[in-house]
Amino acid sequence: MATKLDHIGVAVKSIDRALPLYRDVLGLNLERVEQVAGQGVTVAILGLGDTRIELLEPAGPDTPVGRFLAKRGEGIHHIAIGVPDLAAAAGAALGAGLRLIDEAPSAGTGGRLVAFIHPRSTGGVLIELSEEGDPDNDR
Amino acid sequence: MATKLDHIGVAVKSIDRALPLYRDVLGLNLERVEQVAGQGVTVAILGLGDTRIELLEPAGPDTPVGRFLAKRGEGIHHIAIGVPDLAAAAGAALGAGLRLIDEAPSAGTGGRLVAFIHPRSTGGVLIELSEEGDPDNDR
Repeated sequence: MATKLDHIGVAVKSIDRALPLYRDVLGLNLERVEQVAGQGVTVAILGLGDTRIELLEPAGPDTPVGRFLAKRGEGIHHIAIGVPDLAAAAGAALGAGLRLIDEAPSAGTGGRLVAFIHPRSTGGVLIELSEEGDPDNDR
Repeated sequence: MATKLDHIGVAVKSIDRALPLYRDVLGLNLERVEQVAGQGVTVAILGLGDTRIELLEPAGPDTPVGRFLAKRGEGIHHIAIGVPDLAAAAGAALGAGLRLIDEAPSAGTGGRLVAFIHPRSTGGVLIELSEEGDPDNDR
């Protein structure tokens, strides 16, 4: 199912405050900043080898990342695994007894289809399945 | 400083119980299992693109991963970033005001030199700096 690590999502209170560590100290390349309306989040995308670190700043407290920050504080929020066919991957996850957070896929960064596996069924790791490809022709 | 994501470390109570998700459902390749005596941990190393997921099972409760499990439960424990020169990278981290967990580097998986940046100075993310290279000639 998995072909690569698409990205690591890190929940931050402020992208402006978090960027200096990742961009200036660790030396990652800031590719772009985009808003993902469906997730209520602004995302700073930093390249690292063939994967990325995504800094996630919530639009407000009543969003998935806002609730995560209130409960756990800043830190790693999820990992995203690239899959060639999201419907097939989500079906395989369900077939293996895993629980998806939403039944229908949603749009992630770059407009790609994503689905999340609930951390209660993975040993505490929120795993995003992210369909590979180029829906926006901008990647 | 950073050249690639070396791996993601996931704290688990039992590698035997966690492996089916990563190996059989997600389809990652189990490269090997090794003990890292200095960290009090057994590590299952699974390849994913040009990076790896490492499942960390503590040797007992009085180890870094054992204490993490007691406090936070299972989940993502750290991310490791490959650097060409650990001493230079650790020096740059200190110079930027970051706090290292141990002053002296220690041996990680594959015998490589590693140093950890304290999550209190990174916005909640435990970041391992891992010197690239081939100290064991087995990678």
